[in-house]
Amino acid sequence: MNRRKFLKGSALLSGLLTLNPGDFFASNVQGAPDPKKKAKNIIFMISDGMSSGTLAMANLYSQNILGKNGNWMNLYHDNRVSRALMDTASASSIVTDSAAASSSFGGGFRVKNGVLNVGANGEKYIPVWQKFKKAGKKTGCVTTVTITHATPAGFCINSDSRNAENEIAEMYAEIGFDVMMGGGDEFFNPLKRKDKKDVYDLYKQKGYQILKNKNDLKNTEKGKKILGVFNSGALPYSIDRTHIPELQTTPSLAEMAQTAIDQMKDHKEGFVLQLEGGKVDWAAHANDIAALIHDQLAFDEAVKTAVDFAEKDGNTMVIITTDHGNANPGTIYGAEATKNFDSIASYRYTNEYILNAIHPDFNLQQMKDWIYETNKISLADDEAQHLLSFYSGLEKQEAGLYNYKKLPFKAYSDIQKKHNSVGWISMDHSGDYVEVAVFGPGKELLPAFIKNTDLHYLMLKAAQI
Amino acid sequence: MNRRKFLKGSALLSGLLTLNPGDFFASNVQGAPDPKKKAKNIIFMISDGMSSGTLAMANLYSQNILGKNGNWMNLYHDNRVSRALMDTASASSIVTDSAAASSSFGGGFRVKNGVLNVGANGEKYIPVWQKFKKAGKKTGCVTTVTITHATPAGFCINSDSRNAENEIAEMYAEIGFDVMMGGGDEFFNPLKRKDKKDVYDLYKQKGYQILKNKNDLKNTEKGKKILGVFNSGALPYSIDRTHIPELQTTPSLAEMAQTAIDQMKDHKEGFVLQLEGGKVDWAAHANDIAALIHDQLAFDEAVKTAVDFAEKDGNTMVIITTDHGNANPGTIYGAEATKNFDSIASYRYTNEYILNAIHPDFNLQQMKDWIYETNKISLADDEAQHLLSFYSGLEKQEAGLYNYKKLPFKAYSDIQKKHNSVGWISMDHSGDYVEVAVFGPGKELLPAFIKNTDLHYLMLKAAQI
Ligand SMILES: [Zn+2]
Ligand SMILES: [Zn+2]
Repeated sequence: MNRRKFLKGSALLSGLLTLNPGDFFASNVQGAPDPKKKAKNIIFMISDGMSSGTLAMANLYSQNILGKNGNWMNLYHDNRVSRALMDTASASSIVTDSAAASSSFGGGFRVKNGVLNVGANGEKYIPVWQKFKKAGKKTGCVTTVTITHATPAGFCINSDSRNAENEIAEMYAEIGFDVMMGGGDEFFNPLKRKDKKDVYDLYKQKGYQILKNKNDLKNTEKGKKILGVFNSGALPYSIDRTHIPELQTTPSLAEMAQTAIDQMKDHKEGFVLQLEGGKVDWAAHANDIAALIHDQLAFDEAVKTAVDFAEKDGNTMVIITTDHGNANPGTIYGAEATKNFDSIASYRYTNEYILNAIHPDFNLQQMKDWIYETNKISLADDEAQHLLSFYSGLEKQEAGLYNYKKLPFKAYSDIQKKHNSVGWISMDHSGDYVEVAVFGPGKELLPAFIKNTDLHYLMLKAAQI
Repeated sequence: MNRRKFLKGSALLSGLLTLNPGDFFASNVQGAPDPKKKAKNIIFMISDGMSSGTLAMANLYSQNILGKNGNWMNLYHDNRVSRALMDTASASSIVTDSAAASSSFGGGFRVKNGVLNVGANGEKYIPVWQKFKKAGKKTGCVTTVTITHATPAGFCINSDSRNAENEIAEMYAEIGFDVMMGGGDEFFNPLKRKDKKDVYDLYKQKGYQILKNKNDLKNTEKGKKILGVFNSGALPYSIDRTHIPELQTTPSLAEMAQTAIDQMKDHKEGFVLQLEGGKVDWAAHANDIAALIHDQLAFDEAVKTAVDFAEKDGNTMVIITTDHGNANPGTIYGAEATKNFDSIASYRYTNEYILNAIHPDFNLQQMKDWIYETNKISLADDEAQHLLSFYSGLEKQEAGLYNYKKLPFKAYSDIQKKHNSVGWISMDHSGDYVEVAVFGPGKELLPAFIKNTDLHYLMLKAAQI
């Protein structure tokens, strides 16, 4: 076999034009909506960074450990939704970030990664919650990460950079959305902002009530706009909230969702609400299976909150999806696969909590005790030693998105993998096609394959505005 | 925070009963079939071991490099199919092997991994192609691996072990299926069988014509049963067939499919045909992205062959799915993700071919030249050295399913990953929910979520037998 002759053939490929991913599917929201089936309200749910395997494993955990099927999958089992596969690419890449992804839904145009509803030549695409606000609807966003983060921001504002969270906090107040809840105290609190600006005061001047904890959430004033900021940074992971009493003053996604719905549901012109499970993405970035599953299950609880309301209401469309895959986690074949997977039920905390509690002066036995106590994993001596080396400075600290404390997430996840049979392709987003489900009026508009931007036009068409 | 107190809490979990995965979904083939829409013929297509990301990447490659959308995804875009998510678990594990998976479809019951249609207490579940044969239909299987492999065997026979390929070759002849095509000469050829039995002769005695190459495939005798065995072992990977002239005497999956359909389509009582892209699974086991994409695209060509026939015929149901995920490959976020992914267009051969051509006496430059020539990847010195160490004996040889030659698949895939931005979770099957699409009469019977066993009953119901 002459190896040389193929050089010439492959050189031909170098001149290939790369087409923009998704060009093959023009916007294809299909058919005309039934005027009797107008979507007065829309709830748009995003489990951020949810790969196909995340959905499957959360449901499997629910079945095997909690003894019940998940709410999202129950909608399928009962044939109550329409479904699509969605191409999530951005204008700049086959793999999107959350800013470009939310802009696709929010502005109806693909933009470059990192940007919120601003085109390559500075075009400003009107964010969809502004369109609905203009049409007279109440508007809101609820998330488990900072309320100024990319996913809520992409439905609300235009910005050259998703990182401009200080400015985004102020923009929300100027535009006047009705219910905004999540984390991010550092972008509102004068004691934490560099410019010392009291952004809470700005909201109060605009007539907002400010919620700071779960108790406030239960005692809202009807008819008054809400800013709920329940933490500095993101809200806690669900599994940590369950096991750490100090975190239990923060609400769950479902609790925030219920309050948001109750606050807006009586508005004559209807409402639109984004619900984001933002820490599903962070858990995937950390390759943390327990954090991932429990936050996906928390999202699944919010699915029930939204669909229960929509069902009773009869005029509410619920879109349930993700903005992109992340790390493509999945269970791996092997004699002990089921037992290994089920052992995740013994995990008490996130890897972030577990690894952050380790001190450089831990000895081998302390390290092994702590891991056994929190994960029921018996470390081998060399595994314990390897983990400790990240604290003693012998191993270089890990970096990575959302790994603020430079913890050995990857090293520890590799150890866990041997015990739980779950693997990951990376610590970042993937370009897989993702799952979309639509419940309620307008669900008939969803074709089997869509681009992310199609959901923008689907919302407008379903609401007939 | 008292770490000790959680020990007690988690101990409670140790007594948990683990439910059988899938118990939450009883068979739920829904509704009554329209008597005017009876499926006279059924084509059941399995891209073995196709994770969600495999489908997405093959379509992306088709768009970016070949300038056209894939056939499978076009069916979605044109809204011509019904779709479901499928739970693929086996009786023994959340992650199935191909034998148990094919038995679920083929026998309607979940069995243990490794077994073909035999229950835990020796129950023999009647394989679905035997049921259809009894009902008067012609029956066939076409695969790119050995025709005696788990996936075709699961529709045809009962066996305590998927490895009994010698016996399976004889069982097929005894039962008398109409068209059986794939690889596996070693199970038929007296010169290769330990027992020296001439199994080809057995088929001839039963009135079969024997096909050995692509030319034979073009000159079949109508009305006579077919055994096509085109290779020893599996058929070649598509990408190798494209670039290695010696392999071009073997047919593609689409070519075999066309002949199988033509051979059976005029039968008054109709036909049933399984089409398997078996080397998609093997490519995933090898973490070989070019082999994976090109074999998935070869499967996609066969989708067109099947659907084109079904559309013209009007009485043919086509089921398009996989039996389980494998390795969950996907594209990874990064500034160069698109360019990196598109570089796969320069890959000329499978990693098996490339790595098998490397000799222990290669020097560093020869190694680098060979990799550049075949993959357009410029190895760093230490990468070339690392690869060579597997040949010199300094590194332990890799093992693994279908890695017959103990080549450094994993080591090389790790190097490729840096250049093509594609990652893998493992070198084995995954337990993800998978994609199912149904075209033609009976497609209305498919609910949005199914167990793999449901497809058995869906076929029977659609055909009304
Ligand atoms: Zn992310
Ligand atoms: Zn396999």
